[in-house]
Amino acid sequence: MEGEPTLRLRIFDLNCWAIRYLSRRRRERVRLIGDTLRREGFDLVLLQEVWSEQDYSDLKVKLAGCYPFSHYFRSGVIGSGLCVFSKFPILDTLLYQYSLNGYPYMLQHGDWFCGKSVGSLGAVQGVTAPLLSLSLQLHAEYCRDKDAYLPHRLVQAWELAQFIRHTSKAADVVLLGGDLNMHPEDVGIRLLRGWAGLRDAFAEAAHFEGCKNGCTLVPDNCFTDKSELLPFPLGIRIDYILYKAISSFTVKCEELKTTTGPAPGTDIPFSDHEAVMATLHIQRQGQPAGATLGTADPALADVVTEARTEVGAGLRAAQRQRYSSGRMAVLALLLLLLQAAAALGTLAGLGAEQPFPKLSFCLLAFLALGVLVLSTGLHLFHTMEVKMLHGTEDQMWMVLRALQERP
Amino acid sequence: MEGEPTLRLRIFDLNCWAIRYLSRRRRERVRLIGDTLRREGFDLVLLQEVWSEQDYSDLKVKLAGCYPFSHYFRSGVIGSGLCVFSKFPILDTLLYQYSLNGYPYMLQHGDWFCGKSVGSLGAVQGVTAPLLSLSLQLHAEYCRDKDAYLPHRLVQAWELAQFIRHTSKAADVVLLGGDLNMHPEDVGIRLLRGWAGLRDAFAEAAHFEGCKNGCTLVPDNCFTDKSELLPFPLGIRIDYILYKAISSFTVKCEELKTTTGPAPGTDIPFSDHEAVMATLHIQRQGQPAGATLGTADPALADVVTEARTEVGAGLRAAQRQRYSSGRMAVLALLLLLLQAAAALGTLAGLGAEQPFPKLSFCLLAFLALGVLVLSTGLHLFHTMEVKMLHGTEDQMWMVLRALQERP
Repeated sequence: MEGEPTLRLRIFDLNCWAIRYLSRRRRERVRLIGDTLRREGFDLVLLQEVWSEQDYSDLKVKLAGCYPFSHYFRSGVIGSGLCVFSKFPILDTLLYQYSLNGYPYMLQHGDWFCGKSVGSLGAVQGVTAPLLSLSLQLHAEYCRDKDAYLPHRLVQAWELAQFIRHTSKAADVVLLGGDLNMHPEDVGIRLLRGWAGLRDAFAEAAHFEGCKNGCTLVPDNCFTDKSELLPFPLGIRIDYILYKAISSFTVKCEELKTTTGPAPGTDIPFSDHEAVMATLHIQRQGQPAGATLGTADPALADVVTEARTEVGAGLRAAQRQRYSSGRMAVLALLLLLLQAAAALGTLAGLGAEQPFPKLSFCLLAFLALGVLVLSTGLHLFHTMEVKMLHGTEDQMWMVLRALQERP
Repeated sequence: MEGEPTLRLRIFDLNCWAIRYLSRRRRERVRLIGDTLRREGFDLVLLQEVWSEQDYSDLKVKLAGCYPFSHYFRSGVIGSGLCVFSKFPILDTLLYQYSLNGYPYMLQHGDWFCGKSVGSLGAVQGVTAPLLSLSLQLHAEYCRDKDAYLPHRLVQAWELAQFIRHTSKAADVVLLGGDLNMHPEDVGIRLLRGWAGLRDAFAEAAHFEGCKNGCTLVPDNCFTDKSELLPFPLGIRIDYILYKAISSFTVKCEELKTTTGPAPGTDIPFSDHEAVMATLHIQRQGQPAGATLGTADPALADVVTEARTEVGAGLRAAQRQRYSSGRMAVLALLLLLLQAAAALGTLAGLGAEQPFPKLSFCLLAFLALGVLVLSTGLHLFHTMEVKMLHGTEDQMWMVLRALQERP
């Protein structure tokens, strides 16, 4: 408007599913992703699940010409898997690690070891505005009907929304791309839309091309787990590009695309997820728009209430687990004390007429010690979980109170 | 200036040393702190080391009349110990937990269990500006000459500076109060001054009253550990009130005070730290000041380089620890495999002429198993540590490059 120049920004977002030794045809796919990115020349590329630093380095070398700026976010045991390639200089980075991210003992799910985070970077755009772009992944959903990780994912969504509210004023436009592991109408997504004021590129796009309903996990993809998608024959949309304009800018989504199966000229897709590509128009307005932090939508209070109820349920479950692991630790300690008394009794010559069962005694003692160590560790872990769930519930309550007091 | 109203803001900051069962005369001191806060009527109170939620609740009840708004930040196993009381409404809170905070196996130091964090809150000020106030505590320094925690504390200082840079634009004035566990000229403090653009209320104060050099850990205090302060006969200054003005505001420190030993009318001080009290003048300027994010001070590059060197040293130490714990885990695993082979051999009837030493065999197996579990845990922990130190080193390098490219 008013003749201000428009910036046309092309963004690419993909969960690369590049787990060393586990992901099928990983190296081939990473090469393919690199080739495509080099050919297409996007402005900003947000990748997730690039677990191997070697893959990142290979991509960096290959893409140095067209994406001179890049960053890999390190965290957790395995890494965050997040990396960003940009045409624009990256001025500054910040990693926010979610306070809850599954359980270390759920080895088969492994989310805990990834140190899931939101990687934030301030990239400056030559013509117009500083951009804040975020790449992220939330905790996976392993079973939708009985989703034990829902409270953790909601805490992550809440922390993400809070993080965006607190950091976004340093930029003019916020762009978020990632695998949110949530369906479009899930409470976490509604929270991000309502409380962080983000807009969904799929819903806003003037033109869409790709898998039906913008799905990014589709049964046609040869790498997806078909049994997971049985209840959703069309697939599900869990990868998003979200955005919001701060201060005096407007953002419009001109076009949104997803890939649809095999990459052009090959027999395999990039990943088990489809890539999301958005073309955004960013324009400076004549005068600053009103603050867009938090919409005053009356439905927002309902969304926060719903999220708080789920977090509350998670809190009670965590309290139960804390209690039972604590009780187990106490029992193991009592058993050890009992054994110590028995051993002392034998040393003092009591019951000398019968042989002392050394082997079973030792086995029992080690078993008790093992249980004591493990259950103490679990107790500590669940204590932290309780603290964080409680803290989030508190924060949500504070926001609810503020929302209700607002006219 | 230009006739704009001035806001006079009185801030109280104290490390309360209120550890249940461990801190001497805790309940009495918490009562005393509450009485003083009620009597003095500060605008903003930032407390650290309030480890017991009961103490917070007692304070909250006592102070409800004069500080209607308050927040307790929950994190870690024990808690963050941070709480805030305010005359102004608290609009929003955010907890940023540092990615590194000591070692879980250093039980005698216990920092890891506290989940040390920076608690940030957006408090609105009726007359003028939204304030962002931060209450925090960094990792303690247990031995200045051979400070094993320096890299962790520097990562925390860096994350704090980055956090302030990214979140501070949402406010007009940033106020930070806390126990930074660093001397005034330590590299971490210089980093906060240089990179986050914070100003030290002690250095800026027009009028000062209290312990010499603004010290907050003084030998005169009956609760301090005298042996720790032997090299510093005057005491040390490790509690700070720092501030910065964003956008169109100016902040001036009219007065800074510290307590000096016993609280008035009693024989005990509030804590083993002295409290810091600042009176600030906040005024709107006629026109927006230039961005104050990051000073272009040429010395800043030296400070970041110095910090990066320390973090690099920490990284190499962490890599060594990761390697040795990994090697230990492999050795334990080998021993277990050897034992399994021996047991299978015995079952298969080999060496049946000699009695099988069941007891020592079991003891050895359990020992190996214990070492395997512990060293695997340590290996995972140090892997995370390496990732975070490496990530911080990267971020610092990126900033250094940007600083050097700047004219």
